[in-house]
Parts: sequence; C-alpha cells; structure tokens
Amino acid sequence: MNQEPQHALADIRIRVQRDLTSYLATQTTYLSEIGSELVPVAEAINAFLLDGGKRLRPLFAYCGYLASGGTDDENVIAAVASLELLQACALIHDDLMDASDTRRGRPSIHRWFEGLHQNEELLGSASRYGSAAAILLGDLALVWSDQMLHKSGISESALLRSLEVHDEMRVELMAGQFLDIHEQALSTQSVARSLKIARYKSGKYTIERPLHFGASLALENRSDRQKYIAIFSEFGLPLGEAFQLRDDLLGVFGDPAVTGKPAGDDLREGKRTVLMAMTSDRANERQERVIATHFGSKTLTNEGIAELQEVIVETGARTHVEELIEKLSSTALDALNREEIESGPRALLIELASTAIKRTL
Amino acid sequence: MNQEPQHALADIRIRVQRDLTSYLATQTTYLSEIGSELVPVAEAINAFLLDGGKRLRPLFAYCGYLASGGTDDENVIAAVASLELLQACALIHDDLMDASDTRRGRPSIHRWFEGLHQNEELLGSASRYGSAAAILLGDLALVWSDQMLHKSGISESALLRSLEVHDEMRVELMAGQFLDIHEQALSTQSVARSLKIARYKSGKYTIERPLHFGASLALENRSDRQKYIAIFSEFGLPLGEAFQLRDDLLGVFGDPAVTGKPAGDDLREGKRTVLMAMTSDRANERQERVIATHFGSKTLTNEGIAELQEVIVETGARTHVEELIEKLSSTALDALNREEIESGPRALLIELASTAIKRTL
Repeated sequence: MNQEPQHALADIRIRVQRDLTSYLATQTTYLSEIGSELVPVAEAINAFLLDGGKRLRPLFAYCGYLASGGTDDENVIAAVASLELLQACALIHDDLMDASDTRRGRPSIHRWFEGLHQNEELLGSASRYGSAAAILLGDLALVWSDQMLHKSGISESALLRSLEVHDEMRVELMAGQFLDIHEQALSTQSVARSLKIARYKSGKYTIERPLHFGASLALENRSDRQKYIAIFSEFGLPLGEAFQLRDDLLGVFGDPAVTGKPAGDDLREGKRTVLMAMTSDRANERQERVIATHFGSKTLTNEGIAELQEVIVETGARTHVEELIEKLSSTALDALNREEIESGPRALLIELASTAIKRTL
Repeated sequence: MNQEPQHALADIRIRVQRDLTSYLATQTTYLSEIGSELVPVAEAINAFLLDGGKRLRPLFAYCGYLASGGTDDENVIAAVASLELLQACALIHDDLMDASDTRRGRPSIHRWFEGLHQNEELLGSASRYGSAAAILLGDLALVWSDQMLHKSGISESALLRSLEVHDEMRVELMAGQFLDIHEQALSTQSVARSLKIARYKSGKYTIERPLHFGASLALENRSDRQKYIAIFSEFGLPLGEAFQLRDDLLGVFGDPAVTGKPAGDDLREGKRTVLMAMTSDRANERQERVIATHFGSKTLTNEGIAELQEVIVETGARTHVEELIEKLSSTALDALNREEIESGPRALLIELASTAIKRTL
C-alpha cells in the first residue's frame, strides 16, 4: 500500500469490482440452472451493480480495516465488497418507493422489468410486474450480500466479530429509510428531523458503520476494537452528515451528467432534505409562495426549478449548507490526528473523505 | 420430550412464540429510542408476527435438529424461531406484490399503513406510503431474522455451520418468488413449470431447508450432516410439494375462517397453480370458456367462483391433486423408516407432516 492515496483507493476499487464480478458470475450460473426465466434477474443485478458507483462503503470499510492495523488481504476485500450488494438492495427498493425512472442514467430496476414485460408482451400489468421484480431483486441482493460476506474466506473469528455491527448497520439503514418516507408525508419540515434522517439513512450507514465493520474484521481484542470504533465514530458521524448534505446540494444543483438523475429531481419529488428545511425556515412570504407553488410539483418546469434554486440561494440556505459541510468535514478530519491512526491509512481516509464530500456541482 | 407428539409440537410452538415475543420487545424498544415515528413499525411487525401462523418452518427446523441427534436446547429454539421473521418478510412482500388486502383476517401491512396515512391525514399518496412501508418492513424483518439467529446463543461453530444452508434457503426463496410472478405473466399454463415453482417457493423453503438447517445446528461432523441432509431431502421434497398442493386446494376451496383470506381468492387473482394448470390441461371447450371468463377476473362474483370450482372438480383436477398429495406424503413418510431416525423425533416429524398437509377445506 505504499502508493499515493488516490492510486491506492483506485486499486482497492478495482479489486472490489473484480470480486463482485466473480461473485455475480457464480450466482448467475446458479440462477440459470434453476431456470432460464431467472437469467434476466441475474443480468439486471449485474448491470445495475457493475456499471457504476463509487464503492464508498467497501472503501470506507477497507480503509477502516487498514487504519485499525489490518494487513492487506484479498479475503477482506471480498468481505467489504459485499456491502455493495446491500447498497444495491437499498437503491433498488429506494427507486421503487420514490418511483424514480432512472439510476446512474439507466432505467431503474422496476422500469427495466416494466420494459421487459412490454417487449415480451407478457400478461397483466407491466407496472405491477416491474414493482414485484424490483421488490424481489432487492431482497435477493440483500441475501447475496450476506452470502458473499459469509463466503469471503475471512477467518471464522473475523466473520463472527463482524456480524454484530453488520446487523446493526442494516437495522439502522431500514429505520432511517422509514423515517425518510414518513418525513415526506408530514405537513411541516424540520431541520432537526431531517438531520436525524441524514444521520441514520446515510451518515451511519455510508461511513461510520462501514468503518466499524472494517475495525471488527481487523481487531481480535475487544478493547482495541472499542478504541477504534470510538475514533471512527468521531470521524465518521460528522463526515457522514457532510456527505448527506452534499447529496442534498447535488439533488438540487447537480449536473445530470454527473448525478445520473434529471436536473432538479429532488425538487420535483419534493424531497424533505436538510437543505429544504433550512430554506423554508429562512423564507420570506414571497419565497414561501415560490416553494408552495413549485416544490414537489409533478409538472415542474425548468423555469420552476430555476426559481426554486434562486430561493435556496437567496435565503442563504445553500451557503449555510456549504459552510456546514466545511465545518463537519474539518471536525471529522481532526479526529484522525492521533497516534492510533498511522500515516498511510490516515492519508487514505483523508482522500476518501474528500471523494465523499467533493463538489461536483 | 417424552410427550405425545402433538403435545410436544405445541410445546415447541409456545417456546418459539416466547422467543419471538422477547426478541421483538427488545427491537421495539430499540426502534422507539431512534424515534417515536418508528413505533408503528414495531407495532405492525409485532401484530403481524405474534397474531398467528403455524410456525411450520421453526417446527420443521427444530424437529430436524432433534431427529439428527440434537438435544433439547433453548438457544436452538431461538435460532429456529428466527425463520418466522424471514417468513414475515416473504409474506409482507408477497401481499404487496399480489395487492392482497388481508392476511390471517387482518389488513395486510401495506393496507395497514395506508390506513394509518389516512387516519393521520398525512400528505401525499396513502397507497404509495403503504407500499413503501411494506417494502421497508419486509426488509427489516429479513435483517431481524438474521440478527435473531446471530444472537440466539447457539455455539459459534453451530452458527457458522448453519450459515451456508440458511443462505441457500433464502436465495431459493427469492428465486422461487420470481419464478412465480413471472409465471403469472405468461400466456400459457404448465404443470411442469408450476411444480417447479411449488418446489422452490414452498417445498424447499418450508420443509426441506428448515430440516437441513436443523441438521446443520445439530451435527458437527460433515459426513453425518450429509447423511441426514440426504434423508431430509428424501422426506422434505415430496412433503413440500404436497404442502404446496394443499395450499392450492385451500386457495380455491378453503374456508375463509380457516385460511384468513376471502373465499376463492386465488381464483380472483388468477393464480397459476399446479391445480389450475391441471384443470386447464383437462378442460373441454365449455370448461375452457368458464375459465377464460372468470379466472383472474377482478369482478369475480360468488357465482363465478362456484362455476370455476365446479370445473376444477368436473375435470378431475381436484381429485388428481388430492391423490398426488396422498402419494407424495406416503413417499415422504417412507423416508423416515430408517434406523438413523429415532422413534421420538420420527413421531414428531410424522405429526408435523400431517399438520402441514392436513385437510381444513
């Protein structure tokens, strides 16, 4: 690992990709042996998973593993790669719940199967077929993530240690997702509630828990583990919030070519983010009217998007969120300045933190 | 376990119920500490899970454990009880995919949350809120089933042994579910395809794999395990098919008070079962017209149900399925007549087999 951090991260990413490819190839064969009808299932998950994604969760987990003293290990790469399959479950189900048409510029899974239903002139409702397929593919991805972890080849004791944090991470993810859909149905916005959702749905799940997962793979001794888990919370929680805030900004101001989502997608959807809660808190009467007219409107035009963007900028919410990201990142990075984290892994974590929250507006 | 088999099964069922109650109580507290918005989530899963169900999968797993030489053990009860949470995931997602309004005479989870959305006058579409909640509650139940198994207190080696069959069982379940929804969208029915679906979706998942799971918990030695796994396949596969065939009959002729589903539900839904594939295979022109008119009709009346039932009887499909159930059950029970299965556990398995396929029409 004596490389530039950027190069080392790219190297880990390649190895994660390699293991996902090989695991999925085995599962594709397995499914096709049950029945040829399952080939599209395997193909869809393959395309969904191998076609993109920053692999943030495996990277955080692997860097957490290295930072807590783990030595480079191909089996651990396979173990952390399994987190991408969990993420595939979350995204497939999320797209269905949000009725999103696209993901990374491609059709979302329910839309893809809806299209298959139409092309093959199957019976019944294409939309119901698409939804059912997305529910099951998400479930399958969740089970596969477990299986990939179990078969990763890590030691039995490392596997047993990892299960507790792995389970907690998944419960938190589902809880955070529910808080999120519930929030969208409430009549008021709240910065505090949105921050909590950001913490559970993204922060803990994307950064803190993968780091803990990595520490659990590296450290046999419980008190060592607790020490690193505390450090990683100090680093991961604020960074996770910064990550979600960046995501809020990208959902409003992001370039579709970069986000893979249509411009202003979160605005059309009426997504209750911290950014929008802050905007509402600061809006004057005229700005409130713009929000009431356009936010969450299914027929939102580019002009409407531009008006909303202007309000978010004018109220100072955008600047405030940018400042908050800065502050949270700096708090996060401070947590790495301690002797327990060696300079090599520290450089990796700093580089990775910057990837997670970097500006691609 | 020196009891009458019926009493012994009731006793295991009570202990399974006790462990589910206690696990769910802990998780309810955990969720409510994250946020009060999550209390309905915990309540809904509690009500769904503790309100009924025959606990077939835990019972088969525990009897498989005893039959392969395991001694009565409270921790193993908790481990097998976790299968009910996996089943909760399958049912919650199944009801959503089938757009079923009820389950065991109560509203299905998506309908329950749809009602909550209406009662609390939440914003947006109640139906979308209900669907999203059902997706997430199913996911949560799946993760909880894993966590309950991991925290069951069984030995580390037993846990590690159980993971492989547990993963395979879950992949097969999801594959079988997909085959099922795909089958519903095809223009022709096929007895062979329907039998394969019955095998994956129900047979393996309800009976064979839980028995294997039990054997993996009981037996340290790999070759012993393989011996019992082979016996349990010989017993469990035909019994599992018989179980699904009984379910087909119940879906058409079952008493709503017993099934917890409206009369003729499978007929209204147009469910492609082995029973219906056999009926189609044997139908004359007049009978085909009855099927074409009523089968899968959303507005199916009681008269239409009666006409379809008559066709299923007239073609001989009902009798043929009854005979098939008899034949499969007898093949299954024959597999238990060997010295490897002691008389106590054998009596339990026989009693349990009869519960699984008994007539409650």
